[in-house]
Amino acid sequence: MKNYITHDEWCIVENGFHPEHNEITESLMSLGNGRMGQRGNFEERYSGKTLLGNYVAGVYFPDKTRVGWWKNGYPNYFAKVLNACNWIGIDVQIGGQMLDLNTCQIEEFSRVLDMKKGILERFATVILPGEKRLKIHSKRFCSMADDESGAISYSVTPLNFEEDFIITPYLDGNIRNRDSNYNESFWNEIERETSENCGYLILETKENPYGVERFRVATGMRFTATVNGVDVQPESLPFETEKYVSASIKINLKQGEELAVYKYAVNLSSSNYEAGNLLDAAKSYIARISEKGFEQLYTEHILVWADKWAKNDITIDGNVAAQQGIRFNIFHLGQTYTGEDERLNIGPKGFTGEKYGGSTYWDTEAYCIPFYLATAEQKVARNLLVYRHKHLQKAIENAEKLGFTGGAALYPMVTMNGEECHNEWEITFEEIHRNGAIAFAIYDYTRYTGDKTYLPEFGLEVLIGISRFWKQRITWSKDKNLYVMLGVTGPNEYENNVNNNWYTNYIACWTLRYTLETIGGLWENDSKKLNEIIVKTNLQLNVELADWKHIVENMYFPYDETRKVYLQQQGFLDKEILTVDDIADQRPINQRWSWDRILRSCFIKQADVLQGLYLFEEDFEPDVIRRNFEFYEPMTVHESSLSPCVHGILAAGLGLKEKAYEMYVRTARLDLDDYNNDTEDGLHITSMAGTWMSVVKGFAGQRVKDGMLVLNPYIPDQWNSYSFRIGFQGSWLKISVKKQEVIIENTSEKALALLVNGKEVYLEAFAKTQI
Amino acid sequence: MKNYITHDEWCIVENGFHPEHNEITESLMSLGNGRMGQRGNFEERYSGKTLLGNYVAGVYFPDKTRVGWWKNGYPNYFAKVLNACNWIGIDVQIGGQMLDLNTCQIEEFSRVLDMKKGILERFATVILPGEKRLKIHSKRFCSMADDESGAISYSVTPLNFEEDFIITPYLDGNIRNRDSNYNESFWNEIERETSENCGYLILETKENPYGVERFRVATGMRFTATVNGVDVQPESLPFETEKYVSASIKINLKQGEELAVYKYAVNLSSSNYEAGNLLDAAKSYIARISEKGFEQLYTEHILVWADKWAKNDITIDGNVAAQQGIRFNIFHLGQTYTGEDERLNIGPKGFTGEKYGGSTYWDTEAYCIPFYLATAEQKVARNLLVYRHKHLQKAIENAEKLGFTGGAALYPMVTMNGEECHNEWEITFEEIHRNGAIAFAIYDYTRYTGDKTYLPEFGLEVLIGISRFWKQRITWSKDKNLYVMLGVTGPNEYENNVNNNWYTNYIACWTLRYTLETIGGLWENDSKKLNEIIVKTNLQLNVELADWKHIVENMYFPYDETRKVYLQQQGFLDKEILTVDDIADQRPINQRWSWDRILRSCFIKQADVLQGLYLFEEDFEPDVIRRNFEFYEPMTVHESSLSPCVHGILAAGLGLKEKAYEMYVRTARLDLDDYNNDTEDGLHITSMAGTWMSVVKGFAGQRVKDGMLVLNPYIPDQWNSYSFRIGFQGSWLKISVKKQEVIIENTSEKALALLVNGKEVYLEAFAKTQI
Repeated sequence: MKNYITHDEWCIVENGFHPEHNEITESLMSLGNGRMGQRGNFEERYSGKTLLGNYVAGVYFPDKTRVGWWKNGYPNYFAKVLNACNWIGIDVQIGGQMLDLNTCQIEEFSRVLDMKKGILERFATVILPGEKRLKIHSKRFCSMADDESGAISYSVTPLNFEEDFIITPYLDGNIRNRDSNYNESFWNEIERETSENCGYLILETKENPYGVERFRVATGMRFTATVNGVDVQPESLPFETEKYVSASIKINLKQGEELAVYKYAVNLSSSNYEAGNLLDAAKSYIARISEKGFEQLYTEHILVWADKWAKNDITIDGNVAAQQGIRFNIFHLGQTYTGEDERLNIGPKGFTGEKYGGSTYWDTEAYCIPFYLATAEQKVARNLLVYRHKHLQKAIENAEKLGFTGGAALYPMVTMNGEECHNEWEITFEEIHRNGAIAFAIYDYTRYTGDKTYLPEFGLEVLIGISRFWKQRITWSKDKNLYVMLGVTGPNEYENNVNNNWYTNYIACWTLRYTLETIGGLWENDSKKLNEIIVKTNLQLNVELADWKHIVENMYFPYDETRKVYLQQQGFLDKEILTVDDIADQRPINQRWSWDRILRSCFIKQADVLQGLYLFEEDFEPDVIRRNFEFYEPMTVHESSLSPCVHGILAAGLGLKEKAYEMYVRTARLDLDDYNNDTEDGLHITSMAGTWMSVVKGFAGQRVKDGMLVLNPYIPDQWNSYSFRIGFQGSWLKISVKKQEVIIENTSEKALALLVNGKEVYLEAFAKTQI
Repeated sequence: MKNYITHDEWCIVENGFHPEHNEITESLMSLGNGRMGQRGNFEERYSGKTLLGNYVAGVYFPDKTRVGWWKNGYPNYFAKVLNACNWIGIDVQIGGQMLDLNTCQIEEFSRVLDMKKGILERFATVILPGEKRLKIHSKRFCSMADDESGAISYSVTPLNFEEDFIITPYLDGNIRNRDSNYNESFWNEIERETSENCGYLILETKENPYGVERFRVATGMRFTATVNGVDVQPESLPFETEKYVSASIKINLKQGEELAVYKYAVNLSSSNYEAGNLLDAAKSYIARISEKGFEQLYTEHILVWADKWAKNDITIDGNVAAQQGIRFNIFHLGQTYTGEDERLNIGPKGFTGEKYGGSTYWDTEAYCIPFYLATAEQKVARNLLVYRHKHLQKAIENAEKLGFTGGAALYPMVTMNGEECHNEWEITFEEIHRNGAIAFAIYDYTRYTGDKTYLPEFGLEVLIGISRFWKQRITWSKDKNLYVMLGVTGPNEYENNVNNNWYTNYIACWTLRYTLETIGGLWENDSKKLNEIIVKTNLQLNVELADWKHIVENMYFPYDETRKVYLQQQGFLDKEILTVDDIADQRPINQRWSWDRILRSCFIKQADVLQGLYLFEEDFEPDVIRRNFEFYEPMTVHESSLSPCVHGILAAGLGLKEKAYEMYVRTARLDLDDYNNDTEDGLHITSMAGTWMSVVKGFAGQRVKDGMLVLNPYIPDQWNSYSFRIGFQGSWLKISVKKQEVIIENTSEKALALLVNGKEVYLEAFAKTQI
């Protein structure tokens, strides 16, 4: 836990420089726009602790796998999000001395991420040798409006001296991923060019033996300068060396004169441009944005944020820390994924770091889709589904590597391009419940949006592939006279290679049922389309559907008759049943205990049976949910960032308000307060959606039933009021929950009927109601 | 399977050069003497496929661990058997051209390992450019009599030409381990010296951050030369460079003249000499052996082998391949470990390669000890036990790292110095049955030798440490009202993290019982000594012994009432029960199937329940053994080299002669025929003891019951006769088994009573009997 970040409703504020936490601050203050992202690094050189990080969406490198012992079926490479060319760099030399905040005295310092505007700003006054006081002010953003560009305004003012300043904006491609498996560099230079006040660098990912696509990224920059607000055009001295271009200007500044540099940069990827044309594209992009100028770019950028906040803001009155926490989560989700490009996804660290490889986990389906469904245009969630459809063939190949046949699909645990990029057998090969989450997301989307086109167009093919996988993955137990699922790892990764994980068995059966229903529905409504899919997937109607039905009817689910709870897996009750209070001094167990001890303990890393009861709530009586919650929650250590929100939502539904609030607090400020001591590696982007869910699905009880939006809002005792905005099937609502009342406002043109506390409420366009 | 090795009773013969198999031949023809070992490399330079390998017993390096994902409790390093200075090298230049069998034409070639004498000999006639025919003859050994030295006789004869020959014997320390985790070099040079016809190189293992002992090794050489058998003393030109020393002589040879070089070398380790004194020690060692001269060294060496064979030879009449196979196994065991030094152990590859790290696995206790007990002096097996006693404190620390307390000891899965050197959690943390094998070996030794001193002196302390581990490792299952053991991997590594592995549960209870019995026995016979041990180990008699007894009486053992077989682990019958015949086209499964598929299949890598029935045979009725054998053997794929011998011994005991012979064939020529396609990495040294057991415990039914040697010999139909030699409590026997009779000869001065086919036989000193 760290507490150096100032509590503020809209801003993340570092008051006074904390060099010891600099990498944490850099993570917290990362900027992005869906296409590119940049950690909160300084523009000028900094010799202290820093993780320079610039990332271009969809650009990765297949880093050679590192394992202790190779197992058949492991992937050859681990696709790494690629740390790319540094585009923010501006060297400042004052009288021949390089400005470096690590070596000079700092008189004043603040770094502020304004989440309302998506702007990172820095104010500092530093003292250089000879008691020279220098003021620094920088401001930058990754433009949401022109989403392959960023802009920086960087100014210096000598407060009590006159000196020659050399200012050198540069692009530097000599960048390595900190977590490269063998400390290799992943970039080659293709081309570079400098002129006057411009520079361009085209880098390409190195050759690889895996046949993986190579990416080129063109980074370009141009800058202008003013002194006291007046344009100046001093002679610029371009310089080039391997993977580096710069241009320097020299200006004599008198005491009190402010030199401001406006640096415009672009990052264009060969995913979006013809590789041979990148340099030209970069030049014209740079020309276009620098012509707009900083102020116009800035205005266009903050307008996009204003529109986003209008759709997804949550306000909390009565607790600034909670307010800051929830906006922090929403802000990062919003700048990580915009839904414009169905080839992209939501990396576990977004654009804030490079730990873990790959960009896509089941987090997307289980956690992020509900957030985007409710807070963005329909196409955003739909694009996340299409992403998986695009990877269906790879998922089929992935399953084939593990011995499955006939179109069975196993989606990877971690991926960038559809290929598996994870290499712990207990996860890669066994944490197969991920396949179920991908099926569930199709249902979730269809239920929320009412969109009947996705299933026939894309979804059913995916469901058939996944159903085929489940069919082959289960085993008929002669001993039990039922189907069993052997050797899996459930969502609770503190168990490995267990038999009959209740959650996995449940979601497998659910998938089969949903696939059968979908086929049945299409049979009645569009048999022509169904026929196309049957032909395309070579579905053996008589055999396969009968098999699936037989499995649905004959699956084994571990259950304890005494306690009347589902068992997380077969044999769970052989464990010593303790509660987290019994090991209070030994947590987090993942940092204190050896793996075998964790495995044979009853302690649960993240919701498992409860994850199932959360997803499939409608299938279970409240009493059942309560009994299971009361059994499992006391042994859950929540050492996954994905866990507390699920427990929180269930607790809220069960009326366990204190528990629900405790869970909310755990998720909301996880990164801001560096709860897990790992924020320096980057933020936990995907679990941020869980924080949003804790409020909207938890406190406000948002659900969809029979095609209708449902709300059952209450207010935590700790707050005075809160409000949130959600969209539903074309309508947009603002819901304000106060101690005594709930106000629901339809902010859109489309009328909507919804259920609030069990009663139907009808809201005309722009109407408001009080409950 | 490869068949290029000529079948021969005493020799391993490569007739004609097989460069494509050179690394295999190098492994097969490795030489050793317990202190040092050398692969069957060429003396002269060879630019083809080769793995140069020279190993010095007990010398290792802590190579930084490489894992994909770090888990708490993993060791920081993996102790690697260290490839050391090349001492056999002799460069040959003829008219300025370097001799290299990879680039010249080969007219005749044979490489022969004479196992009777422990000599590697090579004959070749090669054709050099200009149709020059050159004869080469080399002969070398690692002296069994002077076990820190080796000697080489190397001669060349120009058959049809006259030329200047430059001969350069050298020592080269520029050697890397092929399997270094990060391709690092592990040696520094400390000192080097050359003079006339001598050279010395002192290397030290690099600094390491783990506080692991650094080793120095002094390698020294001296050489003499003759022409046509007459000493010559041409001027010698010494040369030195980093980690390299040499001395060259130049001689003009006329057609038909034979130049022979005799190279003497030593490898002295700082484990045995004061580090500062190594150079002097090497010089005086070299002086001593070179003074003896090649012939005397040779004679003394082969006398040691003669003595060894007199103790442990097995003859087989009727099948040369079988004869060669069994001697090959005995030979390598004999040169890997001599039992002189209780700090050493039997590495999985011995001195024949460097794959895997560490030198000690449970193979030593479960497989090698029975071999050394029966074929070597008592101290050899005893030293192997003492080795583990020396590591007791480390085993306690190892257990502490995993959260155990109060003197609980967990011996490592792989080790060099007592610290764990393995880093797959399912093995390192969970394959804990190894602890039981270490306890069992104490029993096995005591039973075989009748030595009553080992238990009080060393053994009981180890038993107490292991018993404490079992006590803490088990869990009381309220559900079963019995003790269970959760999260283990049994000997069958094709199951991971299972609950209640029958074998592990059994050996744990057995250990507790044996410890209790040992304490009880000592209580009666030597309560003073017992008291010392109680004080030393801080044993809480009332509490701990009562706990152990309660566990012994209340352990859960999975069992199938229908089939009346023990279940390998809880839930085994949920699997689809198939036989290996069902997957004949898919074997070996470890090369064809992904790990999850292997894990959820019923297929067994190596004996597991059957390993228990083999070790604890006396606890079970033959019917029980038969039922379990008939259940498990059909699903055992024997993809571990340690498996077939156990099945073979059980089969022999059950009268399943064909199965027993099938299993024997599988183990005996595993390396010779490169059955697993991995002989090039080195030989499977520890499983070689299993081959010996297949004959002696299998076909001949050797056992010990109530302190008496037992034999129940039969002869496989495929053989005419076989004989073997074993020692038992000071007597030495030769047992010859023929189609119609068994002849037992006491070759020692000590009379012996034994049970043969259930009847007592009494043999006076040097007496013989026919049965």
